[in-house]
Amino acid sequence: MSRSPLMPVEDALEQLLAMADAQRLADSEVLPLEDARGRVLASDLVATLDLPPWPNSAMDGYALNLADLDQQPLTVSQRVYAGAAPQALLPGTCARIFTGAPVPQGANCVEMQENAEVLDDGRVRFLQPLKLDQNIRAQGQENRVGDILLRAGKRLGPFELAVAAGQGLAQLHVVRRPRVALLSTGDELVEPGQPLRPGSIYNSNRILLGHWLRELGCAVIDGGILPDHPAQTRLKLEQLQVSADLILTTGGVSAGDADCLGQVLRDSGKPLLWKLAIKPGKPLTVGHFGVVPVIGLPGNPTSALVTFGLLARPYLLRVQGVEEVMPLSFTVNAGFDWHKAGGRREYLRVKLDAGHAVLYPNQSCGVLLGASWADGLVEVPENSTHNHGDPLRFIPFNELF
Amino acid sequence: MSRSPLMPVEDALEQLLAMADAQRLADSEVLPLEDARGRVLASDLVATLDLPPWPNSAMDGYALNLADLDQQPLTVSQRVYAGAAPQALLPGTCARIFTGAPVPQGANCVEMQENAEVLDDGRVRFLQPLKLDQNIRAQGQENRVGDILLRAGKRLGPFELAVAAGQGLAQLHVVRRPRVALLSTGDELVEPGQPLRPGSIYNSNRILLGHWLRELGCAVIDGGILPDHPAQTRLKLEQLQVSADLILTTGGVSAGDADCLGQVLRDSGKPLLWKLAIKPGKPLTVGHFGVVPVIGLPGNPTSALVTFGLLARPYLLRVQGVEEVMPLSFTVNAGFDWHKAGGRREYLRVKLDAGHAVLYPNQSCGVLLGASWADGLVEVPENSTHNHGDPLRFIPFNELF
Repeated sequence: MSRSPLMPVEDALEQLLAMADAQRLADSEVLPLEDARGRVLASDLVATLDLPPWPNSAMDGYALNLADLDQQPLTVSQRVYAGAAPQALLPGTCARIFTGAPVPQGANCVEMQENAEVLDDGRVRFLQPLKLDQNIRAQGQENRVGDILLRAGKRLGPFELAVAAGQGLAQLHVVRRPRVALLSTGDELVEPGQPLRPGSIYNSNRILLGHWLRELGCAVIDGGILPDHPAQTRLKLEQLQVSADLILTTGGVSAGDADCLGQVLRDSGKPLLWKLAIKPGKPLTVGHFGVVPVIGLPGNPTSALVTFGLLARPYLLRVQGVEEVMPLSFTVNAGFDWHKAGGRREYLRVKLDAGHAVLYPNQSCGVLLGASWADGLVEVPENSTHNHGDPLRFIPFNELF
Repeated sequence: MSRSPLMPVEDALEQLLAMADAQRLADSEVLPLEDARGRVLASDLVATLDLPPWPNSAMDGYALNLADLDQQPLTVSQRVYAGAAPQALLPGTCARIFTGAPVPQGANCVEMQENAEVLDDGRVRFLQPLKLDQNIRAQGQENRVGDILLRAGKRLGPFELAVAAGQGLAQLHVVRRPRVALLSTGDELVEPGQPLRPGSIYNSNRILLGHWLRELGCAVIDGGILPDHPAQTRLKLEQLQVSADLILTTGGVSAGDADCLGQVLRDSGKPLLWKLAIKPGKPLTVGHFGVVPVIGLPGNPTSALVTFGLLARPYLLRVQGVEEVMPLSFTVNAGFDWHKAGGRREYLRVKLDAGHAVLYPNQSCGVLLGASWADGLVEVPENSTHNHGDPLRFIPFNELF
């Protein structure tokens, strides 16, 4: 094994994003808003409607024209409910109006009912000074026709889909799903629900990454467990490359001579075995099988989790056209001392307690339980030591879904 | 309208959680891991398997017994691959071993291959000092049989489902979905895809809350748009109460005389119209129709969003048995001056820029676009003013899904 310097996480990310930019999905499909959650907008959403479409009342009260104030008390000439189309305001009168109702043409002020006195004859006297446009939500105050409301490449969550609904759109153009063939490698793996053989362990990565991929808008092609056998590995990859936009594997990427996937990729293409300055993580295979990109994550669950979240996730979002692929992060205080400076950037599973990052006791890369316990990852830079209370970068797990 | 003091957000939350505790869902169902995402664990997940199930190698290298070191170079007596069941180690020999492979009985040390010299006759000499248990992942280092891995009430995301998979479980007991009847009230509302009538607006809350409810594990019963008509409202609620665990409405909760839902609830039950010290938000109806709880959110999209995220969401999680219902929050610096101290706690839509919270220019409660633009909500306490740079509490939107 060579002792060449480890690749910084930034460099790996840059290369992966360049790969993704070269492989951006061009196809789109039209989906109803109900089915578009988690997908990526394929073209700018341009407003076709002023919002609000007409001036409307922010209050339950009375609409009037300030020029008529010297004639008060004013007769109520109409009642305007939300959803109604009002008449123009009769000069010298006011209109009873309710929240959300269109302001009648000719009115330039709404007074809330609490500040209006209704006389015995039904006429209304206004008790407080009034201002032009008071309590009127102007037409187009949220957006004007032609405004770009959402840019192509925006991930569609409940808020974005509601923005589209507010424009009257029942469907949207979204980028088609990336089809990701998900493979676990290793003779030691047994699927949940099956009896455990001596020497074996259960495969947790398929469930971990299957759910995560779907959350990121991907369609998952379940490639199952690859046996440690070159010919079978090659055959499987040949089958999958027909339908997949990406082959995503876990395990089988170390340099040992049981590393069958690595062998097949070396025989068939130009795999890059990256030794990353990341812990947990380190070995990452990036390359192609035929024309299909391959990302090979380490097999240990927490290593797979960290490298997927920090490297494969940005790739998968960018392939769909998302520009901002990096998670929100925050500065928190170390709730621990860290004196073992290492050459790799460490991502520790921590829970936040009063602004301090508290370590999960067992940070071993096999220990998935820590990720479930934790709120997110705290980043310890390469070759650095830290004392309790020092600021560190924190990435909430919820920013990685 | 009385000028009684506004209810603090904490008090409203406390009352809603007490309601939820009284209405916790008792039924559970068994789901395959593939379908359990976003659901809540119904009973503790107790480990039935040590993890790792057997001591295994953390490296590609050689397993040996330190007592045999004085006999080196050592003959390689077996090769142990991941997934294999090794023989006990022959005394005076070593075993070739690969990452993840079980350590043979009798071996108490693994040396990485980089530090071993293979002689021409195949025997192996170790070049570095060795330590007991070096590079061996102990059986049960992640968990022991009988450990509680996940508590009842845990929300199941990819990590938790992977933990279950690691135990060999193919399915889990989850709390049944809360059935939420979602209603929008207001004659002004038109569903997306339909032509807009004069005076009307498109209904964005149904899409907003429908997606959000499903994200929180709820089954959505689409109650459609309620007309502003008491008899029709009553009839609809009577139909929905048969199947719903909660009736969730938007709009129609102000005190105006077009407030038809409020009228029906006042006639039929004991609704509480809460005037909350929250902006956007303020009016929240909480009560029952028959025996079914009702939460009535304000109709303006951002008001609905904030009150749903901060008040209805904790209720819906708690009803499913989730203990920790509050979102993660962080201290950030105000990227603005705030000199209009108000009696209500304000939740402003902000984007983070280098640790500073930058305001969306239009903070009006009708303006949904700001929520899509923003990273989350910054909280401005009641009756407070702030200068640029002052610390404020920030809630990322991703912590609210």
